[in-house]
Amino acid sequence: MSLAEKVLAGDVQAAARLITLLEDNAPEADDEIDSLYPHTGKAYLIGVTGAPGTGKSTLTDNLLGYFRGQGKNIGVVAIDPTSALTGGAILGDRIRMQRHGADNKVFIRSLATRGWSGGLARVVLGAVHVMDAMGKDIIIIETVGSGQVELDIFRAADTTLVVLTPGSGDDIQMMKAGILEVVDIFVVNKADKEGAGLLQADIESMLSMAGNRSDAWQPPVVLTEAINDKGTGELAGAISEHHDYLTSGNGIEAKRRVRIRLDILENLEGVFKDFICSIQDSELLRKQVDDLLRGKSVPRRAAGKMAGLLSDYIKKRESGNKNGL
Amino acid sequence: MSLAEKVLAGDVQAAARLITLLEDNAPEADDEIDSLYPHTGKAYLIGVTGAPGTGKSTLTDNLLGYFRGQGKNIGVVAIDPTSALTGGAILGDRIRMQRHGADNKVFIRSLATRGWSGGLARVVLGAVHVMDAMGKDIIIIETVGSGQVELDIFRAADTTLVVLTPGSGDDIQMMKAGILEVVDIFVVNKADKEGAGLLQADIESMLSMAGNRSDAWQPPVVLTEAINDKGTGELAGAISEHHDYLTSGNGIEAKRRVRIRLDILENLEGVFKDFICSIQDSELLRKQVDDLLRGKSVPRRAAGKMAGLLSDYIKKRESGNKNGL
Repeated sequence: MSLAEKVLAGDVQAAARLITLLEDNAPEADDEIDSLYPHTGKAYLIGVTGAPGTGKSTLTDNLLGYFRGQGKNIGVVAIDPTSALTGGAILGDRIRMQRHGADNKVFIRSLATRGWSGGLARVVLGAVHVMDAMGKDIIIIETVGSGQVELDIFRAADTTLVVLTPGSGDDIQMMKAGILEVVDIFVVNKADKEGAGLLQADIESMLSMAGNRSDAWQPPVVLTEAINDKGTGELAGAISEHHDYLTSGNGIEAKRRVRIRLDILENLEGVFKDFICSIQDSELLRKQVDDLLRGKSVPRRAAGKMAGLLSDYIKKRESGNKNGL
Repeated sequence: MSLAEKVLAGDVQAAARLITLLEDNAPEADDEIDSLYPHTGKAYLIGVTGAPGTGKSTLTDNLLGYFRGQGKNIGVVAIDPTSALTGGAILGDRIRMQRHGADNKVFIRSLATRGWSGGLARVVLGAVHVMDAMGKDIIIIETVGSGQVELDIFRAADTTLVVLTPGSGDDIQMMKAGILEVVDIFVVNKADKEGAGLLQADIESMLSMAGNRSDAWQPPVVLTEAINDKGTGELAGAISEHHDYLTSGNGIEAKRRVRIRLDILENLEGVFKDFICSIQDSELLRKQVDDLLRGKSVPRRAAGKMAGLLSDYIKKRESGNKNGL
């Protein structure tokens, strides 16, 4: 049985193995994802973002518990840019796994960015496809909300949540440009702290001024105390309302289009990266270097010539020859 | 007069402007670099790396003063990954500029990575070409030595220096894999501190064991106290010896080949990035999204079809139509 077949049968270990292959950019992972892809598109994606320390992981955990109480099958993909330095993601995973470890309807996976964002979106989308194909009803994608790749992934979710906390007054100002327009639900966590009401008022006044949403949804502001599991029901209710809003129009299809588009563009980037690897030792590259050394060309023109080899490369690749040129 | 012509005439403001255009990935920068390229290849490149706090900026400053005393015309490209968060590069630039500001034979430029390494090598190489074409005799490239891109740039310099300090015992172990093999000179800075002799002995024993250099050069270990400008002459002497070693064989040409190769590959990546931008709103991409939505294709196959448009894109671009497809 292939990994893909095992994943379709709900094999958790096969799913974990396939996501690791994706992280390692192993060529065989692509074939497995191709096989899984027709079985995807059923899961509902929730994007959760917020600065470190806002409590978004605890909040995600609460939502996980809530949805499990409704009998849902859940997946979590957490992107942790700090893990390479601090081991944060691994540690976080262990703590979470202890809580949900015995529950085979919960699948949690952290992806470390290692300070490098190349190919991250492709790995995240791949992990989402794996969980989707496994039969997860809901997949939560958790990010710290910095960087273009994270924004791309965040906006590709069906419902997006941003977690803010009182007292960190510049939170809203500091958020990455472009993220506010795509937030569906604002969460004020640590709502027992001084300034929660002020933060809520700030968000609401900002929302009343902003007129740049591409849809008619009015983002609510939900107060939570994640650490005490307070407000989880209200938050789940807001998610459910946004889900109903999307399904009442063509919102679900529009979101799927955004994801598919991102997926194609990320795969395209993957083709280019693999191609660049394949030409490292090519005769043509050596010849171009010679030409430049002799003053016969400039780097950009040489690059254009190398790019001309791409169509041959793709043809060879599609015919099963993965060894390059 | 074009920017390139002004740069060739030694115009510092035009040089600064062109490097900013490179940072902004402005298309007109490419044409200017193409014009400058035939006038490059004369400068000697020195790569300086070391962890933050090792004193490599002070050391670079000392070298700058030393080479200026020899009447050399100098450029410095400093890559500072922390600047987006701390403003470190900007601040550092200001302090340096105060010291060398009145000296028109010194051109210093910091490039902030903004936590994002895409295109960094291309910008650094572009900045080096600009300084080279301006008539700089020596260009110092300063990096913190983390990340693949920094390693690529570092190994493309003619002479490479790594700065270590006593007391941070794990320094050598923590250095990026692959960097030790390409270091030409080891600098033990803060040599007045306890443990300097031990660090020197550690490096020497490591060098006596390592047999993975591709050349016959034996890297010396130079002790310095950058803050007191001590050891600068010895360090400059070691650089001069390595320069003589390179010129006694085909070392200079070999180094130029490494740089040209990196330049071509970085430009190739640039072509791919520009192509991806150009197809964002294309009809074919919309059609591929439709096909996937209807289950008629998978992302990787769709990406292959999009990649098939690249050769047309390059042709159009070369014929002067930069508006894409």
